[in-house]
Amino acid sequence: MASCVLAFDFGGTRARCALVGRDGSRLALEVRDRPAEADGRGWLERMIQAARELRAAHPEHAPLAIGVSFGGPVGTDGRIHSMHVSGWEHVDLAGMVSSEFSLPCAVDNDANLGAYGEYRYAPDVRGRDLAYFTVSTGVGGGFVWKGKPFRGAHGLAAEFGHIPVCPDDPSAPVCACGKRGCVESLASGRAIELAGREALQAAGREAAEGFNAGDVFAAAGRGEAWARPVRDRAVGALAWGVASILCVLDLPLVVLGGGVTQAGEALFEPLRARIEGYLPLVLRGRAEVRPAALGQFSPLLGAAALAWDRLDAEHG
Amino acid sequence: MASCVLAFDFGGTRARCALVGRDGSRLALEVRDRPAEADGRGWLERMIQAARELRAAHPEHAPLAIGVSFGGPVGTDGRIHSMHVSGWEHVDLAGMVSSEFSLPCAVDNDANLGAYGEYRYAPDVRGRDLAYFTVSTGVGGGFVWKGKPFRGAHGLAAEFGHIPVCPDDPSAPVCACGKRGCVESLASGRAIELAGREALQAAGREAAEGFNAGDVFAAAGRGEAWARPVRDRAVGALAWGVASILCVLDLPLVVLGGGVTQAGEALFEPLRARIEGYLPLVLRGRAEVRPAALGQFSPLLGAAALAWDRLDAEHG
Repeated sequence: MASCVLAFDFGGTRARCALVGRDGSRLALEVRDRPAEADGRGWLERMIQAARELRAAHPEHAPLAIGVSFGGPVGTDGRIHSMHVSGWEHVDLAGMVSSEFSLPCAVDNDANLGAYGEYRYAPDVRGRDLAYFTVSTGVGGGFVWKGKPFRGAHGLAAEFGHIPVCPDDPSAPVCACGKRGCVESLASGRAIELAGREALQAAGREAAEGFNAGDVFAAAGRGEAWARPVRDRAVGALAWGVASILCVLDLPLVVLGGGVTQAGEALFEPLRARIEGYLPLVLRGRAEVRPAALGQFSPLLGAAALAWDRLDAEHG
Repeated sequence: MASCVLAFDFGGTRARCALVGRDGSRLALEVRDRPAEADGRGWLERMIQAARELRAAHPEHAPLAIGVSFGGPVGTDGRIHSMHVSGWEHVDLAGMVSSEFSLPCAVDNDANLGAYGEYRYAPDVRGRDLAYFTVSTGVGGGFVWKGKPFRGAHGLAAEFGHIPVCPDDPSAPVCACGKRGCVESLASGRAIELAGREALQAAGREAAEGFNAGDVFAAAGRGEAWARPVRDRAVGALAWGVASILCVLDLPLVVLGGGVTQAGEALFEPLRARIEGYLPLVLRGRAEVRPAALGQFSPLLGAAALAWDRLDAEHG
């Protein structure tokens, strides 16, 4: 029987659980969308059930510890602080999961674990300190320094999405964080989609069904006039965030994941150019900027790495 | 004979050297202004001479190691990268000083060591991780995480002065760092003085001899109309920089030193209010913002702490 860990990743609308080997290999995976009616606890119960089924289906893999990635703030005490889903406030998620499976369990937020997953398991990235941006519905961040996720005094470090870009501009969009004009309110998937819809409408056109940020990048790449300013504003805000964190951290590598980064070079090419323009000369050209190699699985695999760490700490 | 370390602090126009005890007490101090004609090497020779005199005058204190604070970038190899003073490019300052005194020597930049000096020796601050801003001719920064100065991949971390504030505003001042509208170009002593002179002139008045940033804060405090926008812009830029680093680092404490902070509460009171406005709700009220307790001596004492660390590392 091969040893492994059990990893969970709770995102905004979707959760995953997997059995993961020490080398980061996903031995088995379950993905479930959150049912609209499920509150936090209900969803957790479903995912625990999914994990039980996973174990039953793979008796040859014995999990020794559990890691959980959570799509929201996680305090230094391991408690979940808040969530758009009701019933998750100040929940001791690690304790609940741990007692369900009678295994040690560690939890951190998805962006810290996205960073850590890339650090631990991504080819060409493994072992290099890095900053990670997740650009999807919102914009989150995490970074790894000297091989460890950096969590800050209250577990709130790396709020890259809330770095101010134009907070004093009364026309800037208001963010869920409580102020105007931060990176997230300009560069998240939701913000790009919204600005794209408005720009299309102003051009007398209508958004196709399923229209999203990817369509904005594609249209801007084709030179469509309505899309370019939308793309440029989003890319500029993201570049601003990256430049700000490089001024603070001087990291050698910045990795970007999340749905919006599926736009590929249509995003990364202008992004790299804008970052350079926002950096002091002394920092230009020093950091590599690349897409997440693990794609949507960075946080899940970061959770697995956290579980392995937890295990090693107990046995070491 | 009591043991001590020898600390140097090379600023833009002034240098200090001191014998410092393990508890951070300054046993003896020399301060010298840089002669206008001295290049880097010439100035170093003068300060080495000053240190020799200090030792000769205090034979009861035997230095065991040397720490040097340098007012410019210091590479991870300990070499000085650049300086407004000629003759200091890529100099192995630690090696030179070490061989002069036949003692181990470590070097770091003044902002990292300002942070570390406060961390190690400032009453009420000792032992608390913190970010440090020096707001004087320029704006520099440093931070201490888990008790160590954070230096980044190339020794260039904590370039707080070059966080972008309004880089796309063509009317924003150009900074020595090569871009427009960063914190330093709006909130440094030089920037405030310049903007103050322009505002006075626009109001049909003339700046008094020795006019500087402190006069702007004083006049704004008295409600003088020309001074308020100048103060507000500087305080806003500084608050923006502080909020940005808190979004990245979630530190519990921000300490500000350097000449401009001598304005005291005329600076700190509006600064604290503006910082809150630039933070996401989740980070508001979490970090204490206060003046450097060691005042102008934070970097010198940080250099002493570095020397003690060097010594402790050698002895196991």
